[in-house]
Amino acid sequence: MAFRLTPHERGFYPLFTRAAENIATTANNLAELVSTDATRRAELARTIKNCEHLGDELTHEILVMINKTFVTPFDREDIYRLAGALDDVLDAMEEAADRIVLYRLDTLPPGVAEQVEVLRRAAGCTATAMPKLEHLAELEQYWIDVNSLEEEADTLYRDLLGDLLAAPDPAQTVDVLTVLKTKEVVEILEEAADAFETVANTVQSIAVKES
Amino acid sequence: MAFRLTPHERGFYPLFTRAAENIATTANNLAELVSTDATRRAELARTIKNCEHLGDELTHEILVMINKTFVTPFDREDIYRLAGALDDVLDAMEEAADRIVLYRLDTLPPGVAEQVEVLRRAAGCTATAMPKLEHLAELEQYWIDVNSLEEEADTLYRDLLGDLLAAPDPAQTVDVLTVLKTKEVVEILEEAADAFETVANTVQSIAVKES
Amino acid sequence: MAFRLTPHERGFYPLFTRAAENIATTANNLAELVSTDATRRAELARTIKNCEHLGDELTHEILVMINKTFVTPFDREDIYRLAGALDDVLDAMEEAADRIVLYRLDTLPPGVAEQVEVLRRAAGCTATAMPKLEHLAELEQYWIDVNSLEEEADTLYRDLLGDLLAAPDPAQTVDVLTVLKTKEVVEILEEAADAFETVANTVQSIAVKES
Repeated sequence: MAFRLTPHERGFYPLFTRAAENIATTANNLAELVSTDATRRAELARTIKNCEHLGDELTHEILVMINKTFVTPFDREDIYRLAGALDDVLDAMEEAADRIVLYRLDTLPPGVAEQVEVLRRAAGCTATAMPKLEHLAELEQYWIDVNSLEEEADTLYRDLLGDLLAAPDPAQTVDVLTVLKTKEVVEILEEAADAFETVANTVQSIAVKES
Repeated sequence: MAFRLTPHERGFYPLFTRAAENIATTANNLAELVSTDATRRAELARTIKNCEHLGDELTHEILVMINKTFVTPFDREDIYRLAGALDDVLDAMEEAADRIVLYRLDTLPPGVAEQVEVLRRAAGCTATAMPKLEHLAELEQYWIDVNSLEEEADTLYRDLLGDLLAAPDPAQTVDVLTVLKTKEVVEILEEAADAFETVANTVQSIAVKES
Repeated sequence: MAFRLTPHERGFYPLFTRAAENIATTANNLAELVSTDATRRAELARTIKNCEHLGDELTHEILVMINKTFVTPFDREDIYRLAGALDDVLDAMEEAADRIVLYRLDTLPPGVAEQVEVLRRAAGCTATAMPKLEHLAELEQYWIDVNSLEEEADTLYRDLLGDLLAAPDPAQTVDVLTVLKTKEVVEILEEAADAFETVANTVQSIAVKES
């Protein structure tokens, strides 16, 4: 059941590539934000906010193009899902940066930087894969890599929850608000990892149908 | 790529109008609930629960009609999304009302009433726009208004999170459960604002395709 | 607007039946986990983790089959939704089991076992209904039963939230972390109940269109 997009519809691909490159830039900024000292964080959070605005514009361009282009319905849903998942990745990274600054979480557990490092690698894979979407080549390895990174993220996430919440030391409860604010950031970073997996699954779904 | 719904399929429109009017009534009741004293809240929460039941019936009617009607697949997905987003708005408003009463949150921060006021305005815009969906007229302003209200809601939400959680006063941690219960209500109200934006985005998507 | 799936496309049905049976097994293990003493829980959580892996394989098989099979687009979305909702049920049950062990929640409120009992019954209904999907027979009662169980789950959930968080006894706030860890488990179990309802709604949607 193979079919090909017409040249006009190929206009989606450069937009997806730009969206993925913007995500890679955001992930680099977020990695810097979590590893730098607290005084520089507000500035980096503003840079990330700008990346999110750019991402919103790219998503809007993609959605306008979906609505103006005739493509068979199922593909349409795939494109819709892919745009949505890329948007979810970016929103989660921006929200994590914002919460770290807003909540004045000056000291983060080391696991948070490890979570962001996994996101940075997933963002790199996604930016490398997206230009290949048009020719449907070499996408298998991308899907395997992102799924493997998602598993790594899951393990880090679960370990962080255990460290934060399962501590038998009752003295730790005195700073329960810090525990909860950190947990919120850790959960948002896990959502970003999940959204990268949704991006990869949607790309694979497109690749299978088009091949 | 224009196409028109047949008269039979137009049956969707009055149902969407009634769903939006029911949401506007709910938002008015919620505005009263958050601004009145705690003794009247249980009664208003019951009224809102009844609105939610009516909304469930309308959603059910729409879904039965989707399944019985031939429409081109992409429109079908739009109608499905629109019904789901209207349902999400109503569920979130009902849940917020319920939690305020259940958690005995007698004193709410002023920002909560501001969040609800934004929802009330978004509900008003939506109720005014929905009867125009059939003729696809004057919907651009609705979309702009709801997106602008959603940004206003975002700012209020973020400020409330900061006020609730970033307080440097360690004494505040003595009432950490109240902080958390209030945070839950604030988050549910933010979900309602997001769902209004999804309603508006779906309406715009339908308008673009049908025009 | 009736249409029938071709024999090839019927390959979906045994996979859905196996997915539902796997969910029933998981629910039984989860019921044992919450009612047994804490020492046996880690082992049962590992068994449930294995069930989740099996479920992931079944979902993957279904998605590969969707992408390789020509079905009319709307059905395709239904199958996609059904696979996703079954996956969500399983993920939530696994996550609840994991968190109980990870957070060392040795003592659970009785309402948690009641939540799991409702899930066990919903899983039983789903496993009984799924083999009937191919012939679209006797599915109405299944839909009514799962919706009624979901309402029961909602009431239990709300009562648990009230018991956990609305306690007027200020002394309870000393163990606020336990309150929050328990709340997280209770919320995850509620997500499982909601996902069972989504499964039933999707099955009904398929049944209406195919009849």
